[in-house]
Amino acid sequence: MVKGYSYDALPMDWVGDWAGRRCTLTPQRSAVVDADSGQSYTFATLDDRANRVGAYLRDALGLVKGDRIAFIGGNRIEPIDLYLAAGKLGVVLAPLSFRLRQPELSELLQCIQPKVLFYEETFAELCDSLIRPACLVDTIRYAAEHSPYQREVLSTPPRQVNNALALDDPYLLIHTGGTTATPKVCIVSHRQMVWNSFELILAAAEGLASRRELLLFPLFHIGGWNTFTPVFHAGGRVVLIRRFEPARVLALIEEQRISHLGAVEAMLKLMAEQPGFAAADLSALRGVTSAGAPCSEAAMRPFWERGIPVSQAYGLTEAGPSNFMHGQSPTSMAAVRARHASVGTAFFHCDYRIVEPQSHQPVRRGEVGVLLLRSPHNFDGYLGQPERTERALLEGGWVDSGDLAREDDAGYVYIVGRVDNQFSSGGENVSPEEIERVLTEHPDIAEAAIFGVADARWGQAPMAVVVASGAPPEVDVLRAYLHERLAGYKVPKHIVYVERLPLTGAGKVDRNAARQLYAPGMSKSGGGES
Amino acid sequence: MVKGYSYDALPMDWVGDWAGRRCTLTPQRSAVVDADSGQSYTFATLDDRANRVGAYLRDALGLVKGDRIAFIGGNRIEPIDLYLAAGKLGVVLAPLSFRLRQPELSELLQCIQPKVLFYEETFAELCDSLIRPACLVDTIRYAAEHSPYQREVLSTPPRQVNNALALDDPYLLIHTGGTTATPKVCIVSHRQMVWNSFELILAAAEGLASRRELLLFPLFHIGGWNTFTPVFHAGGRVVLIRRFEPARVLALIEEQRISHLGAVEAMLKLMAEQPGFAAADLSALRGVTSAGAPCSEAAMRPFWERGIPVSQAYGLTEAGPSNFMHGQSPTSMAAVRARHASVGTAFFHCDYRIVEPQSHQPVRRGEVGVLLLRSPHNFDGYLGQPERTERALLEGGWVDSGDLAREDDAGYVYIVGRVDNQFSSGGENVSPEEIERVLTEHPDIAEAAIFGVADARWGQAPMAVVVASGAPPEVDVLRAYLHERLAGYKVPKHIVYVERLPLTGAGKVDRNAARQLYAPGMSKSGGGES
Repeated sequence: MVKGYSYDALPMDWVGDWAGRRCTLTPQRSAVVDADSGQSYTFATLDDRANRVGAYLRDALGLVKGDRIAFIGGNRIEPIDLYLAAGKLGVVLAPLSFRLRQPELSELLQCIQPKVLFYEETFAELCDSLIRPACLVDTIRYAAEHSPYQREVLSTPPRQVNNALALDDPYLLIHTGGTTATPKVCIVSHRQMVWNSFELILAAAEGLASRRELLLFPLFHIGGWNTFTPVFHAGGRVVLIRRFEPARVLALIEEQRISHLGAVEAMLKLMAEQPGFAAADLSALRGVTSAGAPCSEAAMRPFWERGIPVSQAYGLTEAGPSNFMHGQSPTSMAAVRARHASVGTAFFHCDYRIVEPQSHQPVRRGEVGVLLLRSPHNFDGYLGQPERTERALLEGGWVDSGDLAREDDAGYVYIVGRVDNQFSSGGENVSPEEIERVLTEHPDIAEAAIFGVADARWGQAPMAVVVASGAPPEVDVLRAYLHERLAGYKVPKHIVYVERLPLTGAGKVDRNAARQLYAPGMSKSGGGES
Repeated sequence: MVKGYSYDALPMDWVGDWAGRRCTLTPQRSAVVDADSGQSYTFATLDDRANRVGAYLRDALGLVKGDRIAFIGGNRIEPIDLYLAAGKLGVVLAPLSFRLRQPELSELLQCIQPKVLFYEETFAELCDSLIRPACLVDTIRYAAEHSPYQREVLSTPPRQVNNALALDDPYLLIHTGGTTATPKVCIVSHRQMVWNSFELILAAAEGLASRRELLLFPLFHIGGWNTFTPVFHAGGRVVLIRRFEPARVLALIEEQRISHLGAVEAMLKLMAEQPGFAAADLSALRGVTSAGAPCSEAAMRPFWERGIPVSQAYGLTEAGPSNFMHGQSPTSMAAVRARHASVGTAFFHCDYRIVEPQSHQPVRRGEVGVLLLRSPHNFDGYLGQPERTERALLEGGWVDSGDLAREDDAGYVYIVGRVDNQFSSGGENVSPEEIERVLTEHPDIAEAAIFGVADARWGQAPMAVVVASGAPPEVDVLRAYLHERLAGYKVPKHIVYVERLPLTGAGKVDRNAARQLYAPGMSKSGGGES
């Protein structure tokens, strides 16, 4: 540092101008393909569109650096336009999930205070129902023929709208934890997006310039932007589809010569279950990354058997968006398979510690503790929630992930569960996720929910509510299976078979609801389950 | 930014720990090959060596973060050890040129104040002659059999010596401009090295993980470290040789399957002049980057004709070390050849402006002006020279390169010459470098020096001192050749043929000495030549 500069605080022209910089480097290369419309967009076209959208926002609507805009819609070209235009202007973009309901979205709008709301035609009814904050000066519909976006915004003559921005300036407002009562809105800076892009570019052995990435994560989560950004940054190609259809995805891998995709476990299962899976030409596909939630070996195996490495990555909006993945090494399929349960190693520019939840003292290698993360791609806090930010961002720059993890001797990290789900049994910490994973690895078990129930001897003891996939194994047989694989205090004292488990709004097994349904009289006597 | 963090100022474990991070990712991959000894070093081996050297510096010599060490030596493994160990500890490394003389080196030692001086056996006599600053506690000889380095330093048991460093912490002290009276020592931070590495990784279409780079730049200039660092960062391989021998380099390209090298013009000429050039197997070589000084078309052509793209890059220790290069586009040889005189486009994360030298107002595109540069890889000032730093680092974070440049419509930049060499003739600015380049493109001209001499009509007029390569062309014929290619005021009024031109210590044509020799009575009447 010299002359008192902090380079994070120094405005620079290139910050946010993804489109303009790439347009100078590789103007005629295809950057984005909308597989549904068949339309291909070069870097030059996208820069032109961003300069039109930017000119409209600045000159027609009077928006200035720091103003906020929001959108509700699926994976199409218009959110990409908004992302690139917002980057040029220094306007802050808030993507909103179309899966949320009217009250949740209204509350988010109130929190985010956007001046303009863009929405995809399909969600017109949802948008009309929202309670609009007073700051909202305009709503703009897109994706229909002759939509206002097409008619007015894109017909604006392109102008140079790029502003010098600091890396510390905010870029995105990303809501997370949509199933809890209070929405959390993460402030994501340009610094965070640039640094995480560097992480992903460095981790890709063959670089990202030649990558053809099929984008399956929604653009209202950070995962979507974090898939798009490094590939665009490096000059590769991103293929968009509006809806996940497994047969179509298999066809697209062949048609578009897709070399990489990221997916959640359910998508991988659906793809492998397609009748056409065995015959599908997957020869271009060099890797698949599973993220968003743990992925079972069973979901990975069909891809491994076709020679495609599938591995897990891990991250959180607050500290990543990506923090761990299986990078350039190991390269053999045997090595991939051996560590399938791990989320890989930390990114090059990301520190981590695994610590005691209370004292924050590091645990010994191999032991379970809370995962703390520190890097230049830390988030910048929760919008309007300083206390919550204070709890998430610890002394020394550490983000508390709230996740339990352990590390092997080679630095590969395994995510064990959430701190909040853990309960204590006879002084030992029990993570429901670990027991559930072992249970669902049994060939006759489809799903399981574990929680702690009051126990005279141990304070709490684990109880299992289980859905069988075929003939349910005898309880004693199942217990013997568990005893072979888990410490005694982790083997459920109570095991109940049920037809189906209650789910949360996000489609995950709801342990609290399962407890209320199947163990109403066995209320817990403490522990941290929330 | 949140909680008042500047991420540039936040200590993080990964900063400087190149060896440790790479060792986690790709421990068994070959990172460095010493082609002279035949020895190959994996990332794990280099991490082990860095932990031994670090333990010695910290525990045997008592060095702490911020202390300085220096070395004098050629391109061998020991400077790599020192670089990686210094990065872990936060010790600052000062590479010294073995081409400098005793008084220059003694002055540099006084300026740098190192606690330890490492030196290669070969330079023992030079080192013994130096005036040692009082701070120097030890000198350590390496590269001989049973040297103290081998015996004491590398036999230290490896320990975890990594300290958390901030990106803003200094990493290297690099002396530049060795031919001027006062040495300039640039403070190069970890931030600068990391960001410039990102630039180079992003600019490499195929990534750097699979690169095999032959390192021909000396490790006492920033160019050496800037070649090494991105390749090491990405997990590629660097091949070291101790001395440039053109026939050996051609053989190494085949033996080591070298995919890229950087070179100065003279090296390329020497390689192409080898009798074995036409038969050499260069099939692994995917690109050559010329840097350090302008490179003529004639030096590039033999490589083009063998299908190898050669292009120019540009940068300066103060702002890069790299700032411009021909990146991923264009890809055809025709496109490479068409823009061979350009240094390419600015790096993705680097702003530039071309401005009037006095007013610093941007010139119109296509016009010549001074090149200003701004990026997170700015240097952190000249050691102990705040006024000089003040002159180099302008308001808004701009570094004044002192180079004259112009830009074409596609954003390709051409370096025209040094501001300091420019003189005014009849109100027009004349750059000696431009006229010299046109002169040496003539098939019968080998070398030329241009300077301004007093002129009754124009104030100053250009004079040319020329070395012919064959039969010298008639002066009138040569003047006609120049008139076809240059504006009238640039065509030398006086042309003198000589046998040879005086050179500077760095081996470049010395215009001032040429003036004193060949135009002693024609002293200049103003202008900026220094």
